[in-house]
Parts: sequence; C-alpha cells; structure tokens
Amino acid sequence: MTMRVVPSGPAGSQTVRDHNQRLVLAALAEAREGASRAQLSASTGLTRATVGTLVEDLISDGLVIESSPLRGSRGRPGSPVSLNPDGPAGLGIEINVDYLASCVIDLTGHVRATRIEVVDNRARDPRAVIAAAVALAARVRAEAGLPLAGVGVALAGLVDDRGVLRRAPNLGWRDVDVVSALKVEAHDWIADSSLRVENEANLAALAELWYGERPWLRDFVQLSGEIGIGAGLVLRGQLFRGARGHAGELGHVIVDPRGPECHCGARGCLEQLAGKEALLAAAGVSSLEWLRADATAGKARALEALEHAGVAIGRALLSALNVIDLDVVVLGGVYAGLARWLIPAVQSELSRRVSSPWNPATVLASSLGDDAAVRGAAGLVVHDILSN
Amino acid sequence: MTMRVVPSGPAGSQTVRDHNQRLVLAALAEAREGASRAQLSASTGLTRATVGTLVEDLISDGLVIESSPLRGSRGRPGSPVSLNPDGPAGLGIEINVDYLASCVIDLTGHVRATRIEVVDNRARDPRAVIAAAVALAARVRAEAGLPLAGVGVALAGLVDDRGVLRRAPNLGWRDVDVVSALKVEAHDWIADSSLRVENEANLAALAELWYGERPWLRDFVQLSGEIGIGAGLVLRGQLFRGARGHAGELGHVIVDPRGPECHCGARGCLEQLAGKEALLAAAGVSSLEWLRADATAGKARALEALEHAGVAIGRALLSALNVIDLDVVVLGGVYAGLARWLIPAVQSELSRRVSSPWNPATVLASSLGDDAAVRGAAGLVVHDILSN
Repeated sequence: MTMRVVPSGPAGSQTVRDHNQRLVLAALAEAREGASRAQLSASTGLTRATVGTLVEDLISDGLVIESSPLRGSRGRPGSPVSLNPDGPAGLGIEINVDYLASCVIDLTGHVRATRIEVVDNRARDPRAVIAAAVALAARVRAEAGLPLAGVGVALAGLVDDRGVLRRAPNLGWRDVDVVSALKVEAHDWIADSSLRVENEANLAALAELWYGERPWLRDFVQLSGEIGIGAGLVLRGQLFRGARGHAGELGHVIVDPRGPECHCGARGCLEQLAGKEALLAAAGVSSLEWLRADATAGKARALEALEHAGVAIGRALLSALNVIDLDVVVLGGVYAGLARWLIPAVQSELSRRVSSPWNPATVLASSLGDDAAVRGAAGLVVHDILSN
Repeated sequence: MTMRVVPSGPAGSQTVRDHNQRLVLAALAEAREGASRAQLSASTGLTRATVGTLVEDLISDGLVIESSPLRGSRGRPGSPVSLNPDGPAGLGIEINVDYLASCVIDLTGHVRATRIEVVDNRARDPRAVIAAAVALAARVRAEAGLPLAGVGVALAGLVDDRGVLRRAPNLGWRDVDVVSALKVEAHDWIADSSLRVENEANLAALAELWYGERPWLRDFVQLSGEIGIGAGLVLRGQLFRGARGHAGELGHVIVDPRGPECHCGARGCLEQLAGKEALLAAAGVSSLEWLRADATAGKARALEALEHAGVAIGRALLSALNVIDLDVVVLGGVYAGLARWLIPAVQSELSRRVSSPWNPATVLASSLGDDAAVRGAAGLVVHDILSN
C-alpha cells in the first residue's frame, strides 16, 4: 500500500516496465477466461508491441500460458493467454484458538487443496501447535502438487514487523516467534519460500475482497467473531493496517465502561459482551448449533442474547465508523451464520452515526465460510506475485 | 492520496516528467535556504540535465526563482534556486462556532497575513456568517498582496464531495452550500480560483504536519477540542479521510452508553463529556482563562473536571487507537493550553490499549496556536501546487 504523495525516487524505464507488467497481470486476473494480446492492449491502453514483449516475459517466467487460439465472432483469430493455473501457488496456514487450517490457492484464485482440523489450542504448547500446523500444511501442499511461491500465515493475535506473535490473549501466547518455529518444523520446504504472517481478521477481510461474492465491495470493515473478535479494514480495495499493522482491534473497543473486566486491562470491551463464549453463555447453550436451533425455534433467551450481542456490536461499530468513516460492515466468523438475528440490532445502533443521514451503513453477512482467513493467507502470496 | 496497487493507466513520458517535477519541488520545499541544480540532482537522483530542464520550466511558471550565486566552501560557485515567496499563494478561510479566521500562506510556507474575528456564529444566519468571512478574507488578501492560486475553507462540520456542509450540529447548520455562497459573496475574486473545503479538525492536523515544530511527526491523531470535538488522522504523512472524508469524528465515539444524550442521537458521546462547554460547566467557570487560573491555583473542582475530561478523552482514544493503530496523540484546540492537566489521565487510560506493551502511546500538546485549522486551509492550496 502506498500513501506517499512525495515520490520516493526518479521514474525510469524499469519503473515503467514494472508498472506496465502489473497492468497486464491485473487485466489477466480480471479476464478469467483469458484474453488475446489485442484485448490486453485495449484494456490496458498499452501498445500491442509493448503487450507482446511483456506477455513473452510473463510466459517465460511461468506466470502466463498460451491457450489454444480462440476464434472471435468477427475479425482474425486471437491467440488468448491466461494466468497459469499450474504456475507458482500460495500456501496458507491458519493457527486459531480452536482450529488449525491450511489451503493452496493457484494463480487464478482457485483453491486447489484445503483442510481444517478442529482442536483446542489453548491447552497446548505453542511448539506442538506449530508442529501440528506444519504437518497439516505438508499434507495440503502434497495434495495440491503445485510449485509454491510462498507461505502466508494467519494468526489469532497481534503480530509485529518481524513476524513475532506478540500477544494472542485468547491462546494465552506471548512473544512466540512463529516464523522461526515454522521454518524449524518444516525443515527445508518452508525455509526457501517467502513467508508472510498476518492477523487472521485482516486476512479474512482480504479473502472477502478477493474471493467473496461481491466484487463491488471495495470499502468495508469486516468483523470476525470467534472466541476473540477482530476486524479487517479495507479501503479502496486495500487492507488498512494503521501505523504498525494493528488496526482493527475492534474486540477491544470499550462498549460499557462499567462492564466485565477484559484480559486486556480495560472493562466492557466488545469481546467480553459479544465474543463467541460470552454469547453462548448468555444464551445458556454449549454450541453454535444449539444457539441457532433455539433462535430458529423462537426461544426468548437465545433471541435476547443475540439482540444484546447485536447492540454491543452496533455500539462498537458506531464508534469505529465515526473514527474511520466506512459505510459497509461485513459480519464474518461465527457472526455470518447468526447474521439474520444480529443485523436488526446492529443496524439500529448504526443509525445513530453522526454522518448516517446521507451515509447509512449497510450490514451484510460474509459470503465466505470458516476458511476465509486461511484463504486470505494463501491469497496474500498470489496477490504479491500478481502485483510485483 | 493514492492507495491503489493496481495501476490506473500506462506510464509514459508525461507521467515520468510530472513525477520528476514533483521530486524537484519536494526537494526545494525541504531545502529552505535554496539549492543549486547540482544539489537538486544529488538529492533527487535525477541527472543534472533533467534537473536543468525542469528548473527552467518551474522558473517560467513562477514557482521557482534564481537567487544570487552562492559560493560554496569549496568547488565552483553554485547558482541556487528556491521556491518563489512572491509566487502563487494560498488563502485560508475558517468558519467555526465562535470565531472566523483567514490567512495567506506563500509557497515557502510562511504566513504573510492573518486575522481572527471572535464572534458567536450560532445565533446568525449562514449567509451573514459567510459574508463576514469573505469580508475578513478580502482584507487579509489585500494585506498579503500576493497572486492567489486557490482558496481553502475550514468548516466545523461534515462536508460532502461537492463542498456542501451537510451537518454542523454545533452551528445548527444543515445542508449549507458554502462553496456557492462564498463565490456569490466574493463576486469575482474567489470564483476564478480553485476552491477546496475541508473539515477544520482535518486541516488542523495537516497544519501540525506541515507547519508544526515536530518534523518527525508522520503518524498521529490530532484531537481538536472546541465546542465540538473533531480529530484529524495523519498516516505516513497523509491525511486519512476514510471512505467519504468523514473519518475522525472522535467527538461521537461513545464513552458511556448511560451518559447524557447527544444531539447526534446517541448517548454519552465524548463531546458531551469533554467538549469545551461541558468542561467549563463541570469546573463551574465561564471561560478557559478562569479554568486555567483555578487549575493553576489547585482548586479541586477545576482539577476534578479536567481529570474527568481526561479520562473520557483517554477512553475515546483507547477505542479509536485500537481501531486505527496510531501511537501518537496530539491535543489541539482548547486542549493544547490544558494539556498539562489532561495528559496524565489520558495516558493512564491509553495504557490499557491491547497493543500498549510494545506500542505505548505518546500524548503531546499541539505546537500551533488557535489558527491551526485556517493555516491548514491555506496550506492545502500551497501543498496542491507543490505536489501537482
């Protein structure tokens, strides 16, 4: 993400070439069925000669393949090219509080292999958890059978610049060097790849942006309700990370200063009022399935618990949206499956927003399933290839 | 502000030339004493021939002047150039709840004329207020005697894309077309200039960035405490405006859901607990001067009022910083002069932030006076010239 107006160096022919190569890759990513060089020239504004040279380079790098010639409805036969589905792929790994996940996504954005392992990681040693995550990822990698360009890792906590998980309160972890541990556990096969670590809520939001069912969605906040609550902020189609990458800690927006103590040191944080465990306890049930069953049956305790959670979510979002000015909220994680009960209360609180008269917020359920964050992790690698 | 990774069009020679011209202007803005073409070549990385051509263009555009040759300590005499202090300047106009202000800032960033008029605008018709603001600006413009490149306007409310002031709750204004009214009142002299309208808290933050005493400050939130409370968010040296330009409505972060009703429709907004009038009422005084005098004398009621306001400010900031991840808070507006009493309580609340163990927030008093917002408004014009 670039936010500089003052340019960082002189523009020369290499800058221009890189810029134009990104244009071609972006055009190919949009044209899912492939595009002829003439079509690429039309959609990018580059000359056909320039497109020709760039495409040759991309083919020799293994990023692009030439498909069989396609006969247009009129004009000469084109020679379509497309992103190479067997080219360099991204591996995603997710370490969350009550599950592990891994998947491989190819250059065209398709999931080529995926696995989720339900396991309570709170009772386990970080090294054992990381070893289990690597074992799961090794299986998924073998199943996909693609060359890996890199590995993206989704973590349920705050990660610093060097990839150290500084705080994962719901896992009970502090200062765990996940990057080094992953490399040790994976022996040779991760060490050579580029490795990126990111907060899981940020990655879930990126997955919604890249692979969700609403391609028009370019500016939104995605709330990820799990045992903890995180959020990913997407602005103009880019993840907004704040000064150090910890933006979106919506779980610790204070909803009620007289509320229950939070492990973060404050009182009445959203997580204490609307996190998965708080919600189940308020509804008097032991699982999401029971909560949904009770709510569907119209049981008062379940409906009340959901309404109270919705009000708390709405208040935290009201404060957050007044600060960051976004108009679309996506409810993800466990909230996606509870959206029909949560949305009315959330929407009602949001109508009090100071700019709401002409920017009423839209509240939507996530269009992705439980694997959003791990798909975002793998997608990070693919997106890096396509934009660099 | 550009946030796109996918480039918007092909890069060509015009793009490169514009980019390089911005580089030269940015280098001249940093070198306040002027710079030789050789120095510009060294600091920008451009060839001396390229710098020579660009400088000639800038001189003929009136943006740059050639000063008398400067003899360096060794080597040949240089021929320094610098930004033209008599070149196109920016006019700033501010319409706030209890004052009007105007100033002219030249290309080198110096204030060439400035006036503030204390007047309660709540009791007045918007057209009369705008007419008074234009009259004030006309005097300031005449005093400066510089050619105007444009006009920046600071407003105490939410402005839409077309420059309409949609909501200014503390002025009691709604849907006032300030841009058109300004042009009508100014007859010919504003109509021809480029006119930009922006929220005053955003402009106060930009003034701190551009003209403040801390050039290292590139990422911060600046709270502007007036009758209303706004905030400007600066990230990587750029104003963060959110999806529609209404980011930073910190005055409407909910601090206490059981607190007093706010005119925005919610309860316990920061503005209700720590705005200028709430603060004076809690301290039982009628002016800031009395509040400062009582606090200096150690009077309990004043100290308690300031501590409560500091706690409320700290809680709103705690929620805001957890969402946007910034590490520096600047207290501006009336809070600047009260900072020594407010900062301990603000800092104590912020220590509960979830990422605080390794990102403790720094709380500072603004280094600018009451004219921060109007300086930001004029600076907007100057900054536009230098970066386009």
